[in-house]
Amino acid sequence: MKDLNKIKKFFERDRFVKICGIEIISVGEGTSECSLKISDMHLNSADLVQGGAIYTLADFAFAVAANSEGRLTLTMNNNISYLRPAKGTTLIAKAKKISSTTSTCLYEVEVTDELNTYVAHATVNGFIKDIKTGL
Amino acid sequence: MKDLNKIKKFFERDRFVKICGIEIISVGEGTSECSLKISDMHLNSADLVQGGAIYTLADFAFAVAANSEGRLTLTMNNNISYLRPAKGTTLIAKAKKISSTTSTCLYEVEVTDELNTYVAHATVNGFIKDIKTGL
Amino acid sequence: MKDLNKIKKFFERDRFVKICGIEIISVGEGTSECSLKISDMHLNSADLVQGGAIYTLADFAFAVAANSEGRLTLTMNNNISYLRPAKGTTLIAKAKKISSTTSTCLYEVEVTDELNTYVAHATVNGFIKDIKTGL
Amino acid sequence: MKDLNKIKKFFERDRFVKICGIEIISVGEGTSECSLKISDMHLNSADLVQGGAIYTLADFAFAVAANSEGRLTLTMNNNISYLRPAKGTTLIAKAKKISSTTSTCLYEVEVTDELNTYVAHATVNGFIKDIKTGL
Repeated sequence: MKDLNKIKKFFERDRFVKICGIEIISVGEGTSECSLKISDMHLNSADLVQGGAIYTLADFAFAVAANSEGRLTLTMNNNISYLRPAKGTTLIAKAKKISSTTSTCLYEVEVTDELNTYVAHATVNGFIKDIKTGL
Repeated sequence: MKDLNKIKKFFERDRFVKICGIEIISVGEGTSECSLKISDMHLNSADLVQGGAIYTLADFAFAVAANSEGRLTLTMNNNISYLRPAKGTTLIAKAKKISSTTSTCLYEVEVTDELNTYVAHATVNGFIKDIKTGL
Repeated sequence: MKDLNKIKKFFERDRFVKICGIEIISVGEGTSECSLKISDMHLNSADLVQGGAIYTLADFAFAVAANSEGRLTLTMNNNISYLRPAKGTTLIAKAKKISSTTSTCLYEVEVTDELNTYVAHATVNGFIKDIKTGL
Repeated sequence: MKDLNKIKKFFERDRFVKICGIEIISVGEGTSECSLKISDMHLNSADLVQGGAIYTLADFAFAVAANSEGRLTLTMNNNISYLRPAKGTTLIAKAKKISSTTSTCLYEVEVTDELNTYVAHATVNGFIKDIKTGL
């Protein structure tokens, strides 16, 4: 079992994530779930959730899942596709490991809202450093 | 010549971009330049500019360049690669059109800092709607 | 139920796929399965299956699944990650629809060998034309 | 100056590339140019050059440029966008290094035909192994 408090502490100094209102919900083996409660600050000029906010949530869900595997992991490449605008009030990103080797990994991230609208899908290539995260 | 004030007005209701401190610097034929002055709020737990902030700048530079071509254009897919951490104090994103058809387009975006550190590179597939932006 | 013979006939003039030795195994709702029996002609200078052969299989599995949904669909963007070299003798690509709208769609494709080695993972953004495929 | 004969020799056992009819034209510092003379075998069921053939050319141009830098480099992720069908008789892929570190690199590849039709654009994340290529 992953120690959620320890993981939250590891990421608590991420100020951009804090400003975005993103929270860690749960972490499992090669997985994580993070959420973002949509407010006015996340909207673009069309009153939809801005793509950068959606991306930040997705990429952070990857970072949480990957770094919780024990070694420092950075996003090397993130490929995000936007599927439809959110209709609900909360975005949920679920990251899941597809594969990993000694120094690289691949995760996929689904972003939905609480009504199960499929908002975005990302695949992330991570680079794993030889540095322990203690998670 | 593009009317920069009109373009800025078009995007001024993008609240997420405003919170991120992103500004439109210039817009040309199929190009744009946007910037972000790095402050504490953009940093991650390693005190580096968070990937989501870099992405938001890059994707917005695309949106500014593409929508200034006259028709409403949305990000369908954005593929970003992170190259190295920023060393300077300001990030600059330069978007440039690679190709466009009636309903799709491809742009590339370079993100550097003011010291010319190459921070990230993105390619964006846009979907062009049959709606005039007036730009 | 999809008519596999009709689908095979639709694609039988794809000469590059034929030369690559790729075959359609099955087609379902938003899914397809295609295979490639590895032979000397698919190998690169390191005696591993060449990345282009793996890609061609993955992209074709997408094309089969997407065009079998009834309308002509083209690859707009394909993002492929290579995970590990094949150890077996046959590659299998399974395509699955993630989402679709009137004119765009997103599929993911897993490429494995018959020993279940996860060889590659692709996500494909398709553009759907207003032309019926008759499938 | 790069030794073109040595580079061609390094890749001559790539049987898939040979079958595709791909040739190395030139190699520079972080660059390469490869070509493919279009024939019946490259066509899909719509009589256009098959996406897999275009990809194979683009990915090989990356491999030639990257491995000629001296260390064994593999494609980790290749993100290709198709822009328009070829109108000419020969495809030309030009690869160019965007950035590299000790163990990763990013290249972009333009695929055009001899009439300058912009056919496809790819960005490739490579993984650099600690093995000399002798090039």
